[in-house]
Amino acid sequence: MKKMINGVESLLEESLNGFAKAHSDIISFNYQPHFIYRNQLADKGKVAIISGGGSGHEPLHTGLVGRGMLDAACPGQIFTSPTPDQMMAAAESVNNGGGVLFIVKNYAGDVMNFEIAAEMLDCEHATVLVDDDVSLPKDHSTGRRGVAGTLIVEKIVGAAAEMGASLAECKALGDRVNAATASMGVALTSCTVPALGKPTFDIGDNEIEMGVGIHGERGREPMDLTSASDIVAHLTTAIDDELKPQQGQKVLLHVNGFGATPLMELYLIYELASEYWQSKGVEIVRSLVGNYTTSLDMAGASITLTLMDDELITLWDAPVHTANLRWGC
Amino acid sequence: MKKMINGVESLLEESLNGFAKAHSDIISFNYQPHFIYRNQLADKGKVAIISGGGSGHEPLHTGLVGRGMLDAACPGQIFTSPTPDQMMAAAESVNNGGGVLFIVKNYAGDVMNFEIAAEMLDCEHATVLVDDDVSLPKDHSTGRRGVAGTLIVEKIVGAAAEMGASLAECKALGDRVNAATASMGVALTSCTVPALGKPTFDIGDNEIEMGVGIHGERGREPMDLTSASDIVAHLTTAIDDELKPQQGQKVLLHVNGFGATPLMELYLIYELASEYWQSKGVEIVRSLVGNYTTSLDMAGASITLTLMDDELITLWDAPVHTANLRWGC
Repeated sequence: MKKMINGVESLLEESLNGFAKAHSDIISFNYQPHFIYRNQLADKGKVAIISGGGSGHEPLHTGLVGRGMLDAACPGQIFTSPTPDQMMAAAESVNNGGGVLFIVKNYAGDVMNFEIAAEMLDCEHATVLVDDDVSLPKDHSTGRRGVAGTLIVEKIVGAAAEMGASLAECKALGDRVNAATASMGVALTSCTVPALGKPTFDIGDNEIEMGVGIHGERGREPMDLTSASDIVAHLTTAIDDELKPQQGQKVLLHVNGFGATPLMELYLIYELASEYWQSKGVEIVRSLVGNYTTSLDMAGASITLTLMDDELITLWDAPVHTANLRWGC
Repeated sequence: MKKMINGVESLLEESLNGFAKAHSDIISFNYQPHFIYRNQLADKGKVAIISGGGSGHEPLHTGLVGRGMLDAACPGQIFTSPTPDQMMAAAESVNNGGGVLFIVKNYAGDVMNFEIAAEMLDCEHATVLVDDDVSLPKDHSTGRRGVAGTLIVEKIVGAAAEMGASLAECKALGDRVNAATASMGVALTSCTVPALGKPTFDIGDNEIEMGVGIHGERGREPMDLTSASDIVAHLTTAIDDELKPQQGQKVLLHVNGFGATPLMELYLIYELASEYWQSKGVEIVRSLVGNYTTSLDMAGASITLTLMDDELITLWDAPVHTANLRWGC
């Protein structure tokens, strides 16, 4: 395993310390228990938006804390759920009288721990579960995984909360964006979790993993390495089958890198995906290309599509000021 | 070679097409010859800032075109200099009466081609040569390479041009920022250039390349893989020996990923580098952490330090609106 670390045990804390120092104008790091929270106090009565999950997906979620998006994020160890005490402490810290909305990716550990925390909270609260990964069937035993669409839910709900939406409105909006969002990814290489010290899964030199999860979960099928056009055809077709955007439908197209794939390839994927939907008369009104929901050092990418309307576009465009997503301020 | 591409020949154009579509609100793509230019017309008389170089370092330079930074960027093929006709066409397109400043990384091909273009321009022009890589001695036969410090020169000079600085002022400022900037990098793996189809250099499983260049040029020395603290000590010491910041000196600290290194590790590097300079009483007033000057899929990172003063801080903070660097607007 080749990584620039001092030790498996100290990696997360050292990294979070560096993150907090580099972005001390935006966020602070609560050390015990771990959570990142925004510096700029929200307006009285604003719904507090909190997310979290295993580390190793940065900038998700810590890099998305700040005005217009998350109030706090709870990082677990790498690919390991955060614990309820982190979520409760974060909620107590950032609740400003408007109640707390948890945004949770659909993984058993995350769901369980956020549920435990929610039960113990003595303020108004609700949870949005994100399950945008269409590589698994809708009736899969543990449901579909939450992947890169989570950022879109967090951005849009974060903007609504900033504008004064109530907890019930934020919850309904989050569910609506999740239902309007579908993602699927492909891996060319495995990631390597430091504590494990070797690649999470084996993959041949001429093989790709279609429908991979963001922790290296096996996907729909291993396939022979093929052209970018072929890969994108698989991903876009699966997403299109799910969302069935009509001609004239406005969409947001998000191409997400898993960490080790160059931006050149991500923009090529974007080009091919946008050609696919443009040829169907779908109108791509917003886009996001880059490494946002990563899997450590995995090579590969995912495509996410969200069906947009004027309200969602306004919320997407609203100012956001976080470490790793910033515009309008 | 595992890459998501359709073919070596079409990769650059398909990728630039995708880039132009994803950021059509900010930039446009001139197809023949290739250059990316900003949509929003600059004020009459503003100095036009143009950069360029081989592709494969994205977001440098194409992702840095827009208000407050570059007026145009000329992408060559991967790790291959752009040609003089690209630079001349870009200059003719974006020159708005204030003359043209070329910002050029110190590589023989880039320098030669920008010189040829400059000679043929019939408008006022000047060139800033960036040579911030301290892994080579100052008297190296071809000089020092231009690496991640280039972004800092481009941001600061871009802001000055936007505020109405003259060509001579922009040129002097660029030279000053370059002289105040030092960088050094380390590679854990080689990159793979698609046209070559195999890693650029061999590196053992327990070896790192200290002082690597952004095209995989061999550096100061291959070393055994060691702790992040050890690696950072090598990089920071070399940079500190060059710039010799005094106690109380204000600096910008930039940790740049080469493409395949997770953000977690980059923030760990930031933490260790900031501890080093803080312990010397150096004041880190601004920071930038992420993949900005990449080497395709290389794992590794570089550290860049710039000695700042109030003027440079104001220019760094000034609004910038590009595809991959954006704040204040």
